[in-house]
Amino acid sequence: MTTTNTRVLLHSRPEGEPTPENFEIDEGAVPEPREGQVLLRTRYLSLDPYMRGRMSTAKSYADPVELGQVMVGGTVSEVVESRDPALAVGDVVVAHAGWQEYAVARPEHVRRLDPEAAPISTALGVLGMPGFTAYAGLTLIGRPQPGETVVVAAASGPVGATVGQIAKILGARAVGIAGGPEKVAHVEELGFDAAIDHRAPDFADQLAAATPDGIDVYFENVGGHVWDAVLRRLNTYARVPVCGLVAHYNQTELPPGPDRMSMLMQQVLIRSLTVRGFIQTEFVAEHEARFLEEASAWVRDGRLQYREDVVDGLANAPEAFIGMLRGQNFGKLVVRVS
Amino acid sequence: MTTTNTRVLLHSRPEGEPTPENFEIDEGAVPEPREGQVLLRTRYLSLDPYMRGRMSTAKSYADPVELGQVMVGGTVSEVVESRDPALAVGDVVVAHAGWQEYAVARPEHVRRLDPEAAPISTALGVLGMPGFTAYAGLTLIGRPQPGETVVVAAASGPVGATVGQIAKILGARAVGIAGGPEKVAHVEELGFDAAIDHRAPDFADQLAAATPDGIDVYFENVGGHVWDAVLRRLNTYARVPVCGLVAHYNQTELPPGPDRMSMLMQQVLIRSLTVRGFIQTEFVAEHEARFLEEASAWVRDGRLQYREDVVDGLANAPEAFIGMLRGQNFGKLVVRVS
Repeated sequence: MTTTNTRVLLHSRPEGEPTPENFEIDEGAVPEPREGQVLLRTRYLSLDPYMRGRMSTAKSYADPVELGQVMVGGTVSEVVESRDPALAVGDVVVAHAGWQEYAVARPEHVRRLDPEAAPISTALGVLGMPGFTAYAGLTLIGRPQPGETVVVAAASGPVGATVGQIAKILGARAVGIAGGPEKVAHVEELGFDAAIDHRAPDFADQLAAATPDGIDVYFENVGGHVWDAVLRRLNTYARVPVCGLVAHYNQTELPPGPDRMSMLMQQVLIRSLTVRGFIQTEFVAEHEARFLEEASAWVRDGRLQYREDVVDGLANAPEAFIGMLRGQNFGKLVVRVS
Repeated sequence: MTTTNTRVLLHSRPEGEPTPENFEIDEGAVPEPREGQVLLRTRYLSLDPYMRGRMSTAKSYADPVELGQVMVGGTVSEVVESRDPALAVGDVVVAHAGWQEYAVARPEHVRRLDPEAAPISTALGVLGMPGFTAYAGLTLIGRPQPGETVVVAAASGPVGATVGQIAKILGARAVGIAGGPEKVAHVEELGFDAAIDHRAPDFADQLAAATPDGIDVYFENVGGHVWDAVLRRLNTYARVPVCGLVAHYNQTELPPGPDRMSMLMQQVLIRSLTVRGFIQTEFVAEHEARFLEEASAWVRDGRLQYREDVVDGLANAPEAFIGMLRGQNFGKLVVRVS
């Protein structure tokens, strides 16, 4: 039995893009579960863009990780010791165990998985937080009507790919934006009506051609020049669920002028736009059970496909995470820990 | 009987702030109603900030007024000749007769008023488009809960004053922002919990002191430095109905940088904000009847007060309109035409 717990700690806060030096690999002691707790061994760790925010002290929707502490993160974990009758050794659960091999948790803070129902790693992707983010933002804020046009960026990623496929299931037209020909091809394979490379010099023209009736829902994952082009195509009453702004996460100062904030507000007014930021946790209590039921059925019948990008070993997590912020992953990025 | 129709035409399009030269006073012929039409004589003309948009060809939510055509506008008018049994001579109606003395209309495009129920000019203010704008934006988008903090700018104006008073009726805390001590005093008289002068050098500090629990609903009428200060005080899940941006209507180019558009989007994301532009026409069919019923009752029992700024004569309309865009009116600006 292993007696050390490999952990990835936040060593220093990044200025702009994170570097490997911001992280520290540490060998700690395996924690001891107390009465009412279980000891979890991490099978898969999820790497997600929101973690960039937790590395900084800037005001965000959650507290930052303290220096010297374990990086936060969702995991699929196996119960290796139980001091609570609610879970048995061998049970597989979704937890928030962070970037480490072992963690203790209370059963009420984890969700048990049925390993027969779907590959367990999907609980970190299409049937987990990214999938629910897509589902909640699209169906509760975007509310696409049949025949409307839904545009999503980072469309080969776990959130974007799910947004577009659910949009299709709901009868809308789905246009995906991705970076590079390989990702664009994958978006097409997923059944999107159109896929566009945002690195193309004529990206804005391609977007216009792919959205002849304008854009009714834009699921915002990225910001930057994609948003600039989308904004010009939004229809009256368009809805913009704002889920992420990965193009700006490493931004250390505001871009040079002119100041377009009032221009954005004028567009909101003139076109009766709805711009709505959200974090999926807002909707979990009321909508997660229905999501799991519907999305599991869609995965089973092949209407909702997913792609994973699996990295082996916790020691490789920092590099994989840094690459993800640059768009180098292809599909849901997970670390196979054990 | 008068045989000429005094009209105010759009003579040229303004660059920035409108000038008297953009308007032309014209004496035309009184139009003849056809079968199914009535001839209306304007009693009161409403002057509203949205008209600035109609003077320009920039994309907006409505078509611009053509050069040489009558300026558009809501009116309270009296039927002086009827060729339709639905309306009789002497009936008073709300119409869209524009900046002119006489106009023809079909009965189905006007709404008959009960002159005994309230002063007829209120149909252009607290019981008309501005009142409904306040009601719809606040109750359908802002959705204040009892105890929440609602902030509104241009709080001595017909929309803002109504927003704050309805917020109070709904059990929320109302903070009004206005320009100059006289308007601030009036906002206090209306029963707002606090009133702040946006011209004060320590405006942002005053706003912070008046919103100790942050801001849950900001009813946006103005933009500019008021929005800059409000944005910093918005709570998680705050709602921002965007009704007007009068500080920017005369803007001819974007302000210098840095470019804060991505900063705004990041705030939307981090705080799960809802920013929603609207024009009251979106909500008329479903909600206007209920508004008229509720607001009329509030006016009768004194819970909803209003103030009018009455200018005499169509010839004075251009100057009054230009002054309104500078914030020189005090209360709902109407022109007494006849």
